[in-house]
Amino acid sequence: MVEQRDTQAGSADSFVVGVDFGTLSGRAVVVRVRDGAELASAVLPYADAVVERTLPATGEQLPPDWALQMPGDWVQVLRTAVPEALAASGVDPASVVGIGTDFTACTVLPTTADGTPLSDLSEFRERKHAYPKLWKHHAAQPQADRINALAEERGETWLSRYGGKISSEWEFAKALQVLEEDAEVYAAMDHWVEAADWIIWQLCGSYVRNACTAGYKGIYQDGHYPSREYLAALHPGFADFVPEKLEHPIGQLGERAGGLSAEAAAWTGLPEGIAVAVGNVDAHVTAPAAQATEAGQLLAVMGTSTCHVMSSDQLADVPGMCGVVEGGIVPGLYGYEAGQSAVGDIFGWFVDNGVPAAYRDAAQARGVGLHEHLTELAAAQEVGEHGLVALDWHGGNRSVLVDAELSGVVLGQTLATRPEDTYRALLESTAFGTRTIIEAFESSGVPVTEFVVAGGLLKNAFLMQVYADVCRRPLSVIDSQQGPALGSAIYAAVAAGAHPDVTTAAQAMGKVRRGVYVPDEQRADAYDALYAEYLQLHDHFGRGGNDVLHRLRALRRDAFARAGRSEGGARPTDPATTSSATAPAEASDHRTPEEQPA
Amino acid sequence: MVEQRDTQAGSADSFVVGVDFGTLSGRAVVVRVRDGAELASAVLPYADAVVERTLPATGEQLPPDWALQMPGDWVQVLRTAVPEALAASGVDPASVVGIGTDFTACTVLPTTADGTPLSDLSEFRERKHAYPKLWKHHAAQPQADRINALAEERGETWLSRYGGKISSEWEFAKALQVLEEDAEVYAAMDHWVEAADWIIWQLCGSYVRNACTAGYKGIYQDGHYPSREYLAALHPGFADFVPEKLEHPIGQLGERAGGLSAEAAAWTGLPEGIAVAVGNVDAHVTAPAAQATEAGQLLAVMGTSTCHVMSSDQLADVPGMCGVVEGGIVPGLYGYEAGQSAVGDIFGWFVDNGVPAAYRDAAQARGVGLHEHLTELAAAQEVGEHGLVALDWHGGNRSVLVDAELSGVVLGQTLATRPEDTYRALLESTAFGTRTIIEAFESSGVPVTEFVVAGGLLKNAFLMQVYADVCRRPLSVIDSQQGPALGSAIYAAVAAGAHPDVTTAAQAMGKVRRGVYVPDEQRADAYDALYAEYLQLHDHFGRGGNDVLHRLRALRRDAFARAGRSEGGARPTDPATTSSATAPAEASDHRTPEEQPA
Repeated sequence: MVEQRDTQAGSADSFVVGVDFGTLSGRAVVVRVRDGAELASAVLPYADAVVERTLPATGEQLPPDWALQMPGDWVQVLRTAVPEALAASGVDPASVVGIGTDFTACTVLPTTADGTPLSDLSEFRERKHAYPKLWKHHAAQPQADRINALAEERGETWLSRYGGKISSEWEFAKALQVLEEDAEVYAAMDHWVEAADWIIWQLCGSYVRNACTAGYKGIYQDGHYPSREYLAALHPGFADFVPEKLEHPIGQLGERAGGLSAEAAAWTGLPEGIAVAVGNVDAHVTAPAAQATEAGQLLAVMGTSTCHVMSSDQLADVPGMCGVVEGGIVPGLYGYEAGQSAVGDIFGWFVDNGVPAAYRDAAQARGVGLHEHLTELAAAQEVGEHGLVALDWHGGNRSVLVDAELSGVVLGQTLATRPEDTYRALLESTAFGTRTIIEAFESSGVPVTEFVVAGGLLKNAFLMQVYADVCRRPLSVIDSQQGPALGSAIYAAVAAGAHPDVTTAAQAMGKVRRGVYVPDEQRADAYDALYAEYLQLHDHFGRGGNDVLHRLRALRRDAFARAGRSEGGARPTDPATTSSATAPAEASDHRTPEEQPA
Repeated sequence: MVEQRDTQAGSADSFVVGVDFGTLSGRAVVVRVRDGAELASAVLPYADAVVERTLPATGEQLPPDWALQMPGDWVQVLRTAVPEALAASGVDPASVVGIGTDFTACTVLPTTADGTPLSDLSEFRERKHAYPKLWKHHAAQPQADRINALAEERGETWLSRYGGKISSEWEFAKALQVLEEDAEVYAAMDHWVEAADWIIWQLCGSYVRNACTAGYKGIYQDGHYPSREYLAALHPGFADFVPEKLEHPIGQLGERAGGLSAEAAAWTGLPEGIAVAVGNVDAHVTAPAAQATEAGQLLAVMGTSTCHVMSSDQLADVPGMCGVVEGGIVPGLYGYEAGQSAVGDIFGWFVDNGVPAAYRDAAQARGVGLHEHLTELAAAQEVGEHGLVALDWHGGNRSVLVDAELSGVVLGQTLATRPEDTYRALLESTAFGTRTIIEAFESSGVPVTEFVVAGGLLKNAFLMQVYADVCRRPLSVIDSQQGPALGSAIYAAVAAGAHPDVTTAAQAMGKVRRGVYVPDEQRADAYDALYAEYLQLHDHFGRGGNDVLHRLRALRRDAFARAGRSEGGARPTDPATTSSATAPAEASDHRTPEEQPA
């Protein structure tokens, strides 16, 4: 799909290309260096999308929680979407000065010394562990559990930088799974490479680890990875994982990783030798696109889940962070990342599973979507009118509790409660969740000076107003439909030397509308009362007052065990599997806005 | 509607007629005295049904929470349904030896000295307070609140017999409302008469107050009504309410109130002079129909709500009773009544408001109702598989907490939770609620020896099995489709002297299948774990651990006040008011089984 913009390229201008590698597709955008004008973009869906059921090479059925991707699909984006966007932009390729990319993370693959994916080698193409593990490959949970238990036991200092939990999605857990389940693949790989860096390697021929994923996904803190002693205790064969497979020079965000290779120039139609920026991650790269690079500017990328990124000059122990990484967003500042495991996913789940036919029919008759219909009904209410309060833990709680085993709670339903009441309570619950994160920053000595929103949920103006009222803050919103790709282009401009640094580039090229949503005092007061209830329940069910949500999980596992079924597998009573145009197919901390439901 | 049974009347047999006056219709059944065989029945819907919006005589709009009925509609049942049932039965009217009735309660009306309803007098027919107030007239709540506050302040001993709360539905609150809102009607009435007794008055010409409503609805305890001092403190004009308007000789259940009058004989086609039994109440009268008259036999009449009645030789302070009345169910034993405010109503609410179109379509394709479809999906699960626990307080909690301001809670929902999961959790929550009632009896020294079920929810076999498993008890079930009418016939047989007492008559004429549902040990063990969670949440949210549910009600009222709307009135955003064949139109502790949803 190619999109062309009405902004014409001036003859003296220079341009950059940003490429956003999402979960299901890659998107290229051509951007003017001077002002960030987006001239054209093109999207290419990955041919193999997400490989979750069977390995294409063999037809082998994959175990539960596996998720792989095909490196060739990524390269195809460079060969197709980039030249298409370039052609549509009308820009003279010779005026393009750099290319930058962002990627889902942690998506990671084993390669040979020259960067060839093991899955491209005939001797390994039938081995599932030879393929890239997508961010949402969750089969390394046992390894993650051991990583965390041992780190806690040994008092590893890096653990607190990640809210006390290393995710099963990240580099170490996934690598340990390879070692333990396919030692030959492990032995054969020379590098364990973030896809964010692998794609840069393809573009410029140089392997540079980016500071963002190295820090957030690779446990690289204060110049060190986890120690040899720690890794040996985890698994003797894992003792030298860092020097043998992982360690590699690290590039700061906005630095030049190298020049575009002849081969990549041929793929993309771009001039050989132009700047290729160090790799980056979709949420983090959006910060400059929304001009949210300065200390205290909290960017919430709101979609199926919400990713919060903020830079600060303060290094503090903020509870429940996904990670804090020096230079993790822009060089020279500490980059904090927090998250809400499910946001749009909760709304999508409710619309698919909890709204009766009469509402669907009414929405259809009005020619609007069910989300829009429910939102309008909910918006007509006063704060507190529904008599409900909910905990937004349907996908667990990442920040600030770091507890994936929590689950959703709704209180206050009566025989008069209607779907729009519960829908509104769920919208509000995610705003309350965001407020806990903001308060965690501030009470840890990391001030939040501005709240900026990007992502697909932006289009719900009522939801935005709820966030402004609940958080008692004005909301600024990104003014681009393709934040990550624009952000990648901004880093490309910096790498090309067209702007001196990321913040300057963000001022020139980023797009934000400030203070679009302003809190209403009366509603904010009413929300304070509801938030007090939320907080009391949050602490009661989330901090051990009543561990019922954990016990319900355990009872659920017991029940599945009795039934001889796996919890992750298909459940027998599934006659009405739902699908709607707005339903999320999956949860992601890394979904690009284009892939988010309303 | 007339229904004829295949059981033929023997020539030497004698018969009785039972008439059940429900909320929307009256039903007559002809029953053989010897064995309780139901030969035929007939139903007559009330012409004016429930008068809730405008007074027919004037078109005057009624205030919120009003509910009236027309006495003529009740008499029409005697004139139509009784002769129709009699004709359909093929029974020789001369072989009918008695008639008995049961009524909704507290349904109460002002009459002259001869029993003429004030609403039948031309000078009062345009006054709304002259009409019978149906059980579900809730506009006397302010009066009930003052009755309770003053009783508590003065330490009135009778208050504890009613779980500490006199209902706005009952005789004193409704009478005080008449006094305060239409003093002329109050002054003009000679008697404040339970409809249960008024209909008997019409049949035999004698006014006898029945022990059941006098005790449960009229605060008659240990031979006394509330004192003159107490009533004077409530309202000076109310001081002599008891001697002037209420007090009257009391008849025990199963006694003969009088002989059928010539006029009533002409209406019904029954022989003049046959026994007319003392009046009774729909739930209580069902006990002998289900052979649940002996001490410790707990009868649960399960429908939109559940009414629990049990006789015992123990007088104890059981928490949360609706009432304990000597001879309230059968003479000589203490009759306990407990209740769950919403049961089938919760299931109906969920099906109307929380189940998506795909399920409705799947049910339609299978040719089953949505309740049946969801039940089948839920029944395929293991205990605990849904990972949920719910509090069944969507209509408040009557027993054992006596708190109408509580509301529903669901915990444990995830993005994988489906409608049948929540549906099952709601079914289970009502079983947990029943278990709290059983445990309250037993821990108060009132043993429960058998659990017997009647009412419309009987038809859901899975629900019955859940109750057996949760309560770890076998379930006996009534074996009649018209429990209340059969029960009325049993009392008629006793009043006619055809059986020596209610228990003997119940043995001969009542119908029960014992031990139909037997608990499964493994499931019961699994439910014990879920029940422990329920109980902990029950106490936390119901006994002051966290008063959030009350505060949510208050916030809701504040919101309505800000919006300038009444809470009870129509809400502006109501485009999808739902209605389904199985949806309850109203909640009632007194709904007859025929009027209950599946």
